[in-house]
Order: sequence, then structure tokens, then C-alpha cells
Amino acid sequence: MTERRRITGFSNPTVKALRALRDKKHRKRERRFLTEGLRLLTDARDAGHLPEMLVLSEARDPHPLLAALEAEVGAAGGEIVETTPDILAKITGKDNPQAIAGVFAEFDTALRAIDRSRAPIWLVAQALRDPGNLGTILRTGDAIGAGGLILIDDCADPFSVEAVRASMGAVFTQSIAQARWDEFLPWLRAGKGQLVAASLRDAQPYRGAPYAAPCFLMVGNESRGLPEEYELACDLRVTMPMRGRADSLNAAVAAAVLGYEILAHLDK
Amino acid sequence: MTERRRITGFSNPTVKALRALRDKKHRKRERRFLTEGLRLLTDARDAGHLPEMLVLSEARDPHPLLAALEAEVGAAGGEIVETTPDILAKITGKDNPQAIAGVFAEFDTALRAIDRSRAPIWLVAQALRDPGNLGTILRTGDAIGAGGLILIDDCADPFSVEAVRASMGAVFTQSIAQARWDEFLPWLRAGKGQLVAASLRDAQPYRGAPYAAPCFLMVGNESRGLPEEYELACDLRVTMPMRGRADSLNAAVAAAVLGYEILAHLDK
Repeated sequence: MTERRRITGFSNPTVKALRALRDKKHRKRERRFLTEGLRLLTDARDAGHLPEMLVLSEARDPHPLLAALEAEVGAAGGEIVETTPDILAKITGKDNPQAIAGVFAEFDTALRAIDRSRAPIWLVAQALRDPGNLGTILRTGDAIGAGGLILIDDCADPFSVEAVRASMGAVFTQSIAQARWDEFLPWLRAGKGQLVAASLRDAQPYRGAPYAAPCFLMVGNESRGLPEEYELACDLRVTMPMRGRADSLNAAVAAAVLGYEILAHLDK
Repeated sequence: MTERRRITGFSNPTVKALRALRDKKHRKRERRFLTEGLRLLTDARDAGHLPEMLVLSEARDPHPLLAALEAEVGAAGGEIVETTPDILAKITGKDNPQAIAGVFAEFDTALRAIDRSRAPIWLVAQALRDPGNLGTILRTGDAIGAGGLILIDDCADPFSVEAVRASMGAVFTQSIAQARWDEFLPWLRAGKGQLVAASLRDAQPYRGAPYAAPCFLMVGNESRGLPEEYELACDLRVTMPMRGRADSLNAAVAAAVLGYEILAHLDK
């Protein structure tokens, strides 16, 4: 059986270090992030990511998947820590924490790690500020069979607790890259790829537009949308019906409606 | 010129009462809610909703829309309060508050207020727990020309700060009703209406399914989905491609992808 370390004090340095992972600055320095729940940790394992540390609640119910995960993490040289539900709540910042959490090393998010031939659809987000939106876009990417998400300019942190939670595990299955616009565009143009965005500028109806794989679907900042220069660099600009008073959709919603349209078009 | 009351103390009872509106229990007792920003307040006015109280920051810039709003609220007998940016931040719970906020009386959310002949699409959410999702669904409803949102069973509060914010003003333009399932179903069946849900049970592909107006599109709870009984009561069950590891979408995303599909179908 794998050896477990027990932690019972709130002031234990491991507890402090884990809590600090909720803070972006600290997380960036440590290059580690936290994921909660057996389901997400199992998804991560299935996608080839094992946590460096597994934190278990004393109050957990036994589960074969949990036992398997524990054994694998132990075999890989990871650390296994057992603690009280109260301390786990403190670590995850949730009143009713899941019975298990894991600490992962951040992945490489260099653009060069993206193999565009691997998938027909790629999502691109520019200056996306809300980590919930970011996680939701990852989740949608998984659903439409996208290869991953490319984050342009200053976006929310994909490894924040909120983004990981909203991604429902897709943070482990989708490739993630971070780049400035002036790195992204030359990279895109160095290979095959159609850049698409929702726009009002010289745009055609989003339904039945001539999408082509690999299709890079780009959404902009929640309040400002995409800069004009970025829109003009697109190969295809599409427009969606807006029947009400508002003139825009939530960024994650726009990505999903367009993403499903592109999927249907490419599937034909 | 309309008379303004100045408030400069954090412990002023009005400040305390306004801050308390962020708390659901208090909000329900007062039957009042808070909205921030000139854009949303102008949308509200255009949709026929004037605030009972307007709270202005001393640091606001002059704006013709703001002046018009102030005059209208004053003429309607509403109260106008001027305060410091710090106090406004305290009231709205935001570090960088907008320069204006308004207090509205909650609307009637009885099912009988819904006139189904008014729109071809209606959104229905069951046990939706996240106020951000709720607001986003309202916003999507506005975009697809839905009549409103019917909240079934125990949902998040549509008048919470988070839901109002995420709705981007649609809380004022969409009808909102709250009902138990055993009130909703008889009400629905007493008139024309097709009940549609995403499902894996005996479902057909969501694209090109025989949607018919008035179409009631129902989404379920974020983690449990819809109860089986509710799914079985639907006239049409549709399924969406899920190409990845996950077996579901974010609730607001699912509502949007299906909502836009229904809009396209009904428009043909």
C-alpha cells in the first residue's frame, strides 16, 4: 500500500503552499495548479496527466477509481497526503469540497506545441478576462472535437481554479497555447489554416459559410470584442442573428454556436 | 433640476440597505434589486422599467443619457442619491464600480404573466444553480428573439447581482417566470407549445429536428441534468454531437446552440 502523510494542522506548510495556488502570482511562480474531484482527476489520468501530489479527505468513501489513482500516483513517485475535510475546504476554497484534490505541474503552452493537423477545429480567444468563460470554451472545444485553445494577448489564466473547474476536465484533453498576436499570426500563416471570427464588418451569415479545416475560430474580449486589425486579418467574417436589444453574445456562447456550426459544416 | 440627496458616510442607513441587496434573503424580503451602469439602466428605461432610486457617483462624467435618466426618475417620484466612488464600490461589491446604479422593484414572475403567443421561442431552465448561467441564458434569449425564461423548481435568483450583470440588460427585456414543475406542465399543456430538451433518451439529431413554434426549450441542472420524468414529458428530444471525453455541455452553452438551431429552423 502507498504511504500517506497525514496533515491535521491548518498552519502546516503544505496546507499553506496548496492554498497559495489559488493566487495567480504564486501559481505562476510555482508552475503548479490544483484540480478537485475524482471525476476530473480520472479524466486527467486517462489523458496522460498524473498529479504530483494527491490530497485525500479522511471523510472520503472508498472507490475503485480512487484506489487505482492512488496506486498510480504512488508508483510514479508522487506524494499522497491525507487531511481533514475542513483543511481540504480551506485548500480548495469551497464550503463543500470534493473528497480529493490533485496538484499538477502546468503544461507547456508554447505555440510550437500545437500540431494543427491533429484536429479540424481550433479555438482562439483574444484578451478573454473571465476564467469561467475560458474554462467553458475549453469544455465546448472538447465537445466539438477541437484540438485546443490558443490564448492571444492578455487572457485569464487557464490553470486558475475557476477555469479548471469550468472546463470539466477539458483543460487536460485540449491543447492550450498562449501567444501574442504578433507571434500567432505569422505562426498561423506559416501553414494551412482558416481564421474565422464573428464580426459586423463585411461579414456573411454564419450558417452555411464556407468554413474549411483546419478552421481557427477566434472570439474576442468580453466587453470590447476583437480589435479591428484582428478582424481584418481573418479569412472569413461571419455574423449571427441578433433579434433583441443586445448586439453581442457572451464570448463562450458565441464560440459554442459558431463552433457547432463549423462542426456541422465540416462533417458534411 | 432634480433634488439630490448626498451620502458621504459608510454607516449611512441607505448605504447599509443597498449593500444588503447583494444578499438573497434580504433581497427577497425587500423585493428590490440593484443594477449597475448607464448602459443597463438605459436599456431598462427603454424596456419600460425605471429605478425607484438612482445612485450616482460624484466622480461621474456628464452624459446626456444620464441627465435624461435622472430627469425621468425624478419626474416619476424616484429618489436620487449622490455618493463617493468608495461608497458606490462598497454598495455594488466591485473594485471599479460603474458611476451609476439603480434600485428596481422586482417584477411579477407568475406564470400567468407569460403570453406565449408573443414569441416563437421560450427558454425553460430547471434547477439551474449558477446565477451567471442564468443571466447568460437571458442574454441569449434576447439575441434569439425569445419571449422570456421560465425557471422551474429551485433555481438561482434572476435578480441577483451576478445574474443581472451576466444578462447584460436582458433581465429587463425578457419575461421571467418562476414555477414548480407541477404548475408549469399543466400550464404548458393548456395551450399550444412544443417542449424540447437535449437528451440521450430516444433522441434525434438536433440539426433539422421538427421544431415548432411556440417552442419551449428546456435545459436542466448543471450537474444532474433534467430528471427522467421531465425528459419523458417532452414532445421532442434532441441530441448534440459530443466528440470528446465529456458527455455534456455547460447549461448556458447548450441553451444557446439549441436556441440558435431552433431560430434557424423556424425562420425557414
